[in-house]
Amino acid sequence: MNDWFDKHRERLEQAVATIQSRTAWSPFNDSPSRKIHGDAVDQGAAAFRARLDRPFEIDQPGTIGRIGWEISPYTQEPLGITYPKVDLDALYEGAREAIPAWRDAGARARVGVCMEMVERLNKRSFESANAIMHTTGQSFPMAFAGGGPNAQERGLEAVAYAWMEMSRIAERAVWERSFGSTQVRLQKEYRLMPRGIAVVIACATFPTWNGYPAIFANLVTGNAVVVKPHPATILPMAIAVEILRETLRDAGFDPNLVTLVVDTVAEPIAKDLVARPDTAMIDFTGSSHFGAWIEENARGRPVFTETSGVNSVILESTNDLKGLTMTLGSALSLYSKQMCTSPQNVYIPRKGFRNGDSVMSFDETANALVEGINGLLADSTRAGGVLGAIHNENTLNLIARAREIGQTRGKILRDAAPYAHPDFPNARTSTPLILGLDISDTDIYRREWFGPVILFIAADDAEQALAQAASDAKQCGAINSYVYSTDSAFIQRAQDAFLEAGANLSCNMIGPMPLTYAAAFSDYHVSGLNPAGNATLTDASFVNGRFRIVESRRMEVGS
Amino acid sequence: MNDWFDKHRERLEQAVATIQSRTAWSPFNDSPSRKIHGDAVDQGAAAFRARLDRPFEIDQPGTIGRIGWEISPYTQEPLGITYPKVDLDALYEGAREAIPAWRDAGARARVGVCMEMVERLNKRSFESANAIMHTTGQSFPMAFAGGGPNAQERGLEAVAYAWMEMSRIAERAVWERSFGSTQVRLQKEYRLMPRGIAVVIACATFPTWNGYPAIFANLVTGNAVVVKPHPATILPMAIAVEILRETLRDAGFDPNLVTLVVDTVAEPIAKDLVARPDTAMIDFTGSSHFGAWIEENARGRPVFTETSGVNSVILESTNDLKGLTMTLGSALSLYSKQMCTSPQNVYIPRKGFRNGDSVMSFDETANALVEGINGLLADSTRAGGVLGAIHNENTLNLIARAREIGQTRGKILRDAAPYAHPDFPNARTSTPLILGLDISDTDIYRREWFGPVILFIAADDAEQALAQAASDAKQCGAINSYVYSTDSAFIQRAQDAFLEAGANLSCNMIGPMPLTYAAAFSDYHVSGLNPAGNATLTDASFVNGRFRIVESRRMEVGS
Repeated sequence: MNDWFDKHRERLEQAVATIQSRTAWSPFNDSPSRKIHGDAVDQGAAAFRARLDRPFEIDQPGTIGRIGWEISPYTQEPLGITYPKVDLDALYEGAREAIPAWRDAGARARVGVCMEMVERLNKRSFESANAIMHTTGQSFPMAFAGGGPNAQERGLEAVAYAWMEMSRIAERAVWERSFGSTQVRLQKEYRLMPRGIAVVIACATFPTWNGYPAIFANLVTGNAVVVKPHPATILPMAIAVEILRETLRDAGFDPNLVTLVVDTVAEPIAKDLVARPDTAMIDFTGSSHFGAWIEENARGRPVFTETSGVNSVILESTNDLKGLTMTLGSALSLYSKQMCTSPQNVYIPRKGFRNGDSVMSFDETANALVEGINGLLADSTRAGGVLGAIHNENTLNLIARAREIGQTRGKILRDAAPYAHPDFPNARTSTPLILGLDISDTDIYRREWFGPVILFIAADDAEQALAQAASDAKQCGAINSYVYSTDSAFIQRAQDAFLEAGANLSCNMIGPMPLTYAAAFSDYHVSGLNPAGNATLTDASFVNGRFRIVESRRMEVGS
Repeated sequence: MNDWFDKHRERLEQAVATIQSRTAWSPFNDSPSRKIHGDAVDQGAAAFRARLDRPFEIDQPGTIGRIGWEISPYTQEPLGITYPKVDLDALYEGAREAIPAWRDAGARARVGVCMEMVERLNKRSFESANAIMHTTGQSFPMAFAGGGPNAQERGLEAVAYAWMEMSRIAERAVWERSFGSTQVRLQKEYRLMPRGIAVVIACATFPTWNGYPAIFANLVTGNAVVVKPHPATILPMAIAVEILRETLRDAGFDPNLVTLVVDTVAEPIAKDLVARPDTAMIDFTGSSHFGAWIEENARGRPVFTETSGVNSVILESTNDLKGLTMTLGSALSLYSKQMCTSPQNVYIPRKGFRNGDSVMSFDETANALVEGINGLLADSTRAGGVLGAIHNENTLNLIARAREIGQTRGKILRDAAPYAHPDFPNARTSTPLILGLDISDTDIYRREWFGPVILFIAADDAEQALAQAASDAKQCGAINSYVYSTDSAFIQRAQDAFLEAGANLSCNMIGPMPLTYAAAFSDYHVSGLNPAGNATLTDASFVNGRFRIVESRRMEVGS
């Protein structure tokens, strides 16, 4: 067996060091540029095309049929791929049998294998990016960066955290003290034990970015992993499962440590997985509704959730209106607002938003933002890169519902409309709809509108907006919050309020970095302090409940 | 404010170092000897007596009456102490208000205060020992060692773990990378946030040993703690709450960070505490039944349980029968087997137990153990030191039930009987009852008999015994397991089987160290891998889910 730990040691050490310094470091380049990657671009596209209209074979136990019905949001045609339909008992049996050798190989060997997995995932980033694009509706650059290198880095981060946690636990000790006049001397041994079979339920829109950390955190701590993708977004996870199984096989381990369970929207299987007593742990990314159901039905088993919430923007003042409208406009438009970190509720003070020396009314501020978004989306090539496609056709109903509301209450500040995607004429697309609301319209804005529906909310002033937004974050859940202000005292208050609500805060962010970007090794994603999820990518608590420590101690016979 | 962190820095650093080396270290002497402690012995006894027959005053919010009905197992007379009966809403409100200043003081200040608390608890060990003795029924030496220094060390261990966890998280970072041709530079700040109000439900028999770690893990990470003692064992926790509140007050913090909620057996309040949505976390030590209820009703909130199980002993072979019978006999008798770590099911091979060059039958082996126990308990002074008193009068019914079983099935190898306690003629006492069973009698031995009921189980051979005991540990729960064997291959198999079942193993332990002794900084207590509890005293996962990390990041205005 190759010593993959040594092969990847330098990268691992760099990851561990960066986790502690929280500075910027990326082992992988997240630009999909052909200048950097050369032939890999076309090879990845070809590999993706070769997947279409045929069975995706996975040599795992319990296959009892074929299943799968994915449709590309770009072509609105089926991908034509089928996956194994599994008998869960047989699959679990295979996973269970795979664990002991993996567990007994020890943390160092497992870390080596997982590091190799990350490396191999990275080499397949273009194939994966095409798969992500044609299942989630993300633009290709986002599918590459967010679903490839950035996701792989979050997976690597989980491996590095787990290594930090496991490697600092003593493997043995000699313990000696006196009891009365007798000196007692014990040999102690401490063994790291996995919990068993872990289920990772991936989401429809960012399957790899949340999925990899969970998969790796489970695997590296000695568990087997059953991956359950969203029925609309199977292929990216199936490719990952294939790569991970290959790596395990090459390392001399049982590939059934990583298996795939596919279901359909009509016959969902996630509840069955949660209900199984031999499911030892559950990771879930998706709706807060189902996340809450899992938490309530976990019966003491560890559950790690990343769900959704209501992310707010407070506009208090700025010295760079143009930069603000560009940056915020991009964030509100990006991937048609189908991200758990997307801002949704934009609070604008009725008493005026100060821009440099002038004060803008609600209408002027709202208009500047709408104009910024219109400018961004005017060119359809650029719009395609920003908006991508609409993942789920139900999202079109959501837009229609928002429009209806705007016709009777509040005001439609910008209407949604399909746009012509430059490369995919049949793409399911929509530009954003922007509703103008009053802070009293809580029934409308205190919920997540997952898709291109943006809410501009008139508050008396920024203080009122802050109080409402922070309270909503705490009660309805929020992952991020955003503030623009030149008043350092206000920023301080915003920081206190949002951090207490558990909604990470970004202040005065202007420029090309996407507002929603969360960097591995530096940005913590989800606080666990509000309903938007109970787990953080990544902190120590994300990994070290996934294994346990068991001890044996002995007195040598005759001593 | 005193810099208590610096005052206790050396002890903290020693604790952190020992946690990593797992070697022997005790900051406190656990012998109650007058030679060591001098006047403290009598002062503690006097302080205890001064508590009796009067209200125990705690200046905490929401007092709406008096409550409390403790009875000493040694005198079978009421202690006559009443405690505040509280209105939970008012109490929680006080706790909630106390959190922000405590949270904002930071980890270093909180660690200093908690270290000082441990120190002050230690100074009050004799008062506490008397309180523990006269509520739990422990012997005085055990009440002192296990409930005093050993418990304080487990509390200190939790503080040290939390310090390790919190202090390695970066407080801020400068993060810089390019997006396209633009260099983006962010100031990031990471804040440690408590979860809120934590409830610690303490047990009847070892309130401080399990309670201190939970209290300190919560407190040091910034939470407020509501302590809910068992209604039969209030005083030890009330004294601890008093000491902790005094320390907080002296440090300039709101004492309502630590409060006491007392209930009665007739009107238990634990479920109300669990049901409150503003209870952020729950620690529980007690029955596995109620532990499971809490886990099922936690609805996603962290729960840390230490409950109970069936601890087994496998007798395969020995070269020191006398040492074995002395050591195991003591462990089976200690505190009348009212410990979660007590051995209960002793497997004896029907094919013979090898002692040196001879082979003993089941009856011979059983008889040797019974004789050992009889010898240990022959002298009533010595018996008092070993057995202590029976905590709960229902335990006498348990003994009667075991006797009935023995009269119809199996065999009574030793009957229970009250013994005359040398100092307390009215003490509620019982020597152990030993039942002889067959391995087919699973309905009798696959459950915990909490009290002086010991089961000797005839197995075909040690292999059969091991398979049964390990399976029972996994399914019924077990904290510890015990093996005696001179066969290193058998020991290896026992280690593999019990460690997989999550039951810590002690091998061939002979000598004056109590078999059940679990040393802070070295022995992990409860694995979390079987129904005997989900939390370990102490590992990193015991502390680092109790706080969360929230981030703010900002671009300086104009940059």
